[in-house]
Amino acid sequence: MTDVQPWRAQPTARPEVSARPKTGIVMLNLGGPATLDDVQPFLLELFADREIIQLPFQRWLGPFIARRRTPKVRQLYANIGGGSPILRYTEAQGQGMVARLDRISPETAPHKFYVAFRYAPPTSDAALRAMHQDGVERAVAFTQYPQFSCSTTGSSLNELWRAADRTGLRDAFQWSLVDRWPVHPGFIEAMTETVREGLSRFAPSVRDRVTILFSAHSLPLDVIDRGDSYPQEVGASVQRVVECLGAPNPFILAYQSDVGPVRWLGPSTEQVIRRLGARGEKRVLVIPIAFTSDHIETLSELDREYGEVAHQVGITHYRRAPALNERPRFLDALSDIVREHLASGEVSSTQYPMRCPGCTNPQCRNVLNPAARTTRRARGEKLKPVAG
Amino acid sequence: MTDVQPWRAQPTARPEVSARPKTGIVMLNLGGPATLDDVQPFLLELFADREIIQLPFQRWLGPFIARRRTPKVRQLYANIGGGSPILRYTEAQGQGMVARLDRISPETAPHKFYVAFRYAPPTSDAALRAMHQDGVERAVAFTQYPQFSCSTTGSSLNELWRAADRTGLRDAFQWSLVDRWPVHPGFIEAMTETVREGLSRFAPSVRDRVTILFSAHSLPLDVIDRGDSYPQEVGASVQRVVECLGAPNPFILAYQSDVGPVRWLGPSTEQVIRRLGARGEKRVLVIPIAFTSDHIETLSELDREYGEVAHQVGITHYRRAPALNERPRFLDALSDIVREHLASGEVSSTQYPMRCPGCTNPQCRNVLNPAARTTRRARGEKLKPVAG
Repeated sequence: MTDVQPWRAQPTARPEVSARPKTGIVMLNLGGPATLDDVQPFLLELFADREIIQLPFQRWLGPFIARRRTPKVRQLYANIGGGSPILRYTEAQGQGMVARLDRISPETAPHKFYVAFRYAPPTSDAALRAMHQDGVERAVAFTQYPQFSCSTTGSSLNELWRAADRTGLRDAFQWSLVDRWPVHPGFIEAMTETVREGLSRFAPSVRDRVTILFSAHSLPLDVIDRGDSYPQEVGASVQRVVECLGAPNPFILAYQSDVGPVRWLGPSTEQVIRRLGARGEKRVLVIPIAFTSDHIETLSELDREYGEVAHQVGITHYRRAPALNERPRFLDALSDIVREHLASGEVSSTQYPMRCPGCTNPQCRNVLNPAARTTRRARGEKLKPVAG
Repeated sequence: MTDVQPWRAQPTARPEVSARPKTGIVMLNLGGPATLDDVQPFLLELFADREIIQLPFQRWLGPFIARRRTPKVRQLYANIGGGSPILRYTEAQGQGMVARLDRISPETAPHKFYVAFRYAPPTSDAALRAMHQDGVERAVAFTQYPQFSCSTTGSSLNELWRAADRTGLRDAFQWSLVDRWPVHPGFIEAMTETVREGLSRFAPSVRDRVTILFSAHSLPLDVIDRGDSYPQEVGASVQRVVECLGAPNPFILAYQSDVGPVRWLGPSTEQVIRRLGARGEKRVLVIPIAFTSDHIETLSELDREYGEVAHQVGITHYRRAPALNERPRFLDALSDIVREHLASGEVSSTQYPMRCPGCTNPQCRNVLNPAARTTRRARGEKLKPVAG
């Protein structure tokens, strides 16, 4: 459905920097298995994360479920080329981002990026050790999830702080966070560009009647009921993209990838596709609105699995907009987001301290060694930007 | 908690217009019982509406539940002054709107407004008859719910078309719809003004640390799973108000007024208040984000019921932002929305034809005698504005 080629894991290529990096940018994301043999370790990490999945007897049941799911998930990765391309894309994004940052924010240069995946290498531990070795002192934890959820960005940040403890690097860096960017203009423009490209794959005569189906990863309702801000932020992203697009297409937001026995936030993307087909719709364009790179949920679930569903229910023209991946406009956005963050002197978004009212995790919303006292934010003071 | 005075029902005062109105604007809303004796008829209508509530044996069970709930609901209305102020506010809004429209849109003047409540007088039937008597030909159905839901605007529109059948006025008017306005700049500015006024009731030294709790009426999850656009649009409204506000306050979106045994969209406003109090928060400002006038959900549920909950859990400063009511900036917004709609020549929003994928109601998304063919919209053509 997309132009992504099958891809196999490559050793991580880190660009050499001559000068000591003044600003280290840690790109936080889910990660994915680079090869088929990495599938089981990935699932074991995923099912061990109590910030995403709470199971009874998790230390035993988590590995049991992970092992039982391994063959099926291995097959899914085999179908998309033998591994997840998320590391390749994240590194391309990081390289494009720091090259731009060195130009547009010389006072915080040189910049260097470090990848920290939650459930696959490179880990937070490895990112912190590399950053320490490079002599970085000022660090930005930059979530690659545009919309905040405790299940994604929250879990990654908590893991980053735990890794700082594990590696003995608790006091090594001065931190600030880019913890969400659901309506950043650069992100919205880049996402809108992908929608336009998706629409361009339909005949001009019918293009304005294509149903645009925004799809985001779902969350269990228990997470929603705790007060997770994710659905509010996803709703805002969708609205902004539709406005930026300026096309008359009908659209809908749905949620994909629910698993297990608990109830998840709907409507379900798969159900929406089935029902659109059942009422005779022939043209659907799917937009992955909450991820920035191709991964199993786009290449396998949206393209293959739901593509087959669409075919079954008579949707003759089912397309998926390309992921942001290495798109120059998206690299511009990533660098703009970091530049604006560094120039603001803020430790985090003003919304980051807002823990879910139903939160029971005492670790949540910490910032390790913040680059300035977070309480200043509430008094409206700006922190001193990193000086040149 | 607010400055709203107890109020008793007044006979509907319709301003006399000398010339035949060129444009009739039907203001659609829920309505409410004007007096305590109107509570039972109101509940009977509400529990008969299968577009909101599906009950087994509804013709029997609906009236049974309505009658059983009457004494409790009567008491709630007694507590807020003996009736709902929604008609008074709607008429004030209508008067302010048409006075402005006559100035800013002379080519579609004179304008006249008509109130059509879903569960209380004045009904859709009465609105249509009055409009016919006045000689109106061009009619705009203007929802007073900023965010679209099939349970609110959808139900009101379907009732309007049924009323046209019942009254024999099926062919009397040329219709267009203002079916949603979740991020209209005028609405966002007026809503932000109410947030600022709410915040101004906290001491300047703590104002930036007040938690802002946006509260919208909840929906059963079955409605969400059908594909109702309401949560996406409410999320977008919240984001825009927060941006317009430009203050560092933490905020959260929650949903109120869930009843009965089915599961509703969360997080629940009441639970959020309980949990904020339990973790020691002292200052909360509640913003009714999905209604435009004071009514039982603001005056009784938010102010009295949740105010009592807040007190119990140690929130020492619990405030509610004023509803939009007769605020001049909101009257400006209402008239701007209609002016822009009339000038666009559109029959509806481009999103209106997007029925919920899980919809089973064949009546949904009709437009009776549209002022132009809706299919033109999909080809990007503009309809001829109502000429002067």
